Amino acid sequence: MPGKKSDFPVSDVRKYLEPGPIVLVSSRWQGKNNIMTMGWHSVMEFSPSLVGCLISSGNHSFGMIRGSGECVINLPTVELIDTVARIGNSTGSEIDKFDAFDLTAEEAGEVDAPLIKECHANFECRLHDDALVEKYNFFIFEVIKAHVASKPEHPKTMHYTGDGVFMLSGKMAKRRALFTKVL
Amino acid sequence: MPGKKSDFPVSDVRKYLEPGPIVLVSSRWQGKNNIMTMGWHSVMEFSPSLVGCLISSGNHSFGMIRGSGECVINLPTVELIDTVARIGNSTGSEIDKFDAFDLTAEEAGEVDAPLIKECHANFECRLHDDALVEKYNFFIFEVIKAHVASKPEHPKTMHYTGDGVFMLSGKMAKRRALFTKVL
Repeated sequence: MPGKKSDFPVSDVRKYLEPGPIVLVSSRWQGKNNIMTMGWHSVMEFSPSLVGCLISSGNHSFGMIRGSGECVINLPTVELIDTVARIGNSTGSEIDKFDAFDLTAEEAGEVDAPLIKECHANFECRLHDDALVEKYNFFIFEVIKAHVASKPEHPKTMHYTGDGVFMLSGKMAKRRALFTKVL
Repeated sequence: MPGKKSDFPVSDVRKYLEPGPIVLVSSRWQGKNNIMTMGWHSVMEFSPSLVGCLISSGNHSFGMIRGSGECVINLPTVELIDTVARIGNSTGSEIDKFDAFDLTAEEAGEVDAPLIKECHANFECRLHDDALVEKYNFFIFEVIKAHVASKPEHPKTMHYTGDGVFMLSGKMAKRRALFTKVL
């Protein structure tokens, strides 16, 4: 279980999402919770804090997120690798994934969708623009509240390459001296 | 310099892009070449092979890519970390980045924009949908030809966290036994 989480500036969520981790997207709709895995996402703006996400219409979560206009993007670390794989290979139309995978649904601050307590960070999202949902299943969310565990500063994340194979995050490399502007 | 590259199926580029690496985007317009760094991108579809990319209008590359409707997404490995940082902290309005950073512009197969020979993989892209360019600087490209070095199978990539700090890719973890469907 991660350590105590604190509020984190929503304009800085790129620190966790830009490196491209697999995330868990939690949702609530008509009294039911669900979780899906997601690897196709991109930061789109600092402020408002926008994140674009591909949520296939074949996923049970698609209708729940479209209906509620909300979700939480949760950042799992490597201890959860088997759980992540199992979440991605089951459907919320058949099981309650919080129960099935022993995950804890915590109340969020701004949205109805639950946080996943076992994750290092939780980003509460509200649908910002659905212009590309029909054509590409591409949702643009605004992160309206962020919760991040204070340690470690750089959590060990999973990055999916397809075919059942994950890349795990490795060492950090600082190159601040070469930066003359904010990248 | 990477080993010999071969054609790679465009529907499989998620293997390299879904993990979320910093990429170098090369372009050509009105006889000039340019390169920019990009960390805000997402795979959007297998076939056609679509990739969504945030290219800020403040970048010199923005007008070149909008004008030509083309670019190449190049995958740099860790040997190029200083070059990547320098490319992201300079502008093509002042220098020729291929010359300045000793990179080799190779002719592409399907687009006019050059490949960066020193990169592990090169994905030739054509603008597929500009519906979100005005509002978000978000371009949807189709990868129409892909070139990938045969070794190593999993290149050591850089993943940007902001503030001049990169995460380097680490070990691979296979969980195929838990996969009952293609994720």
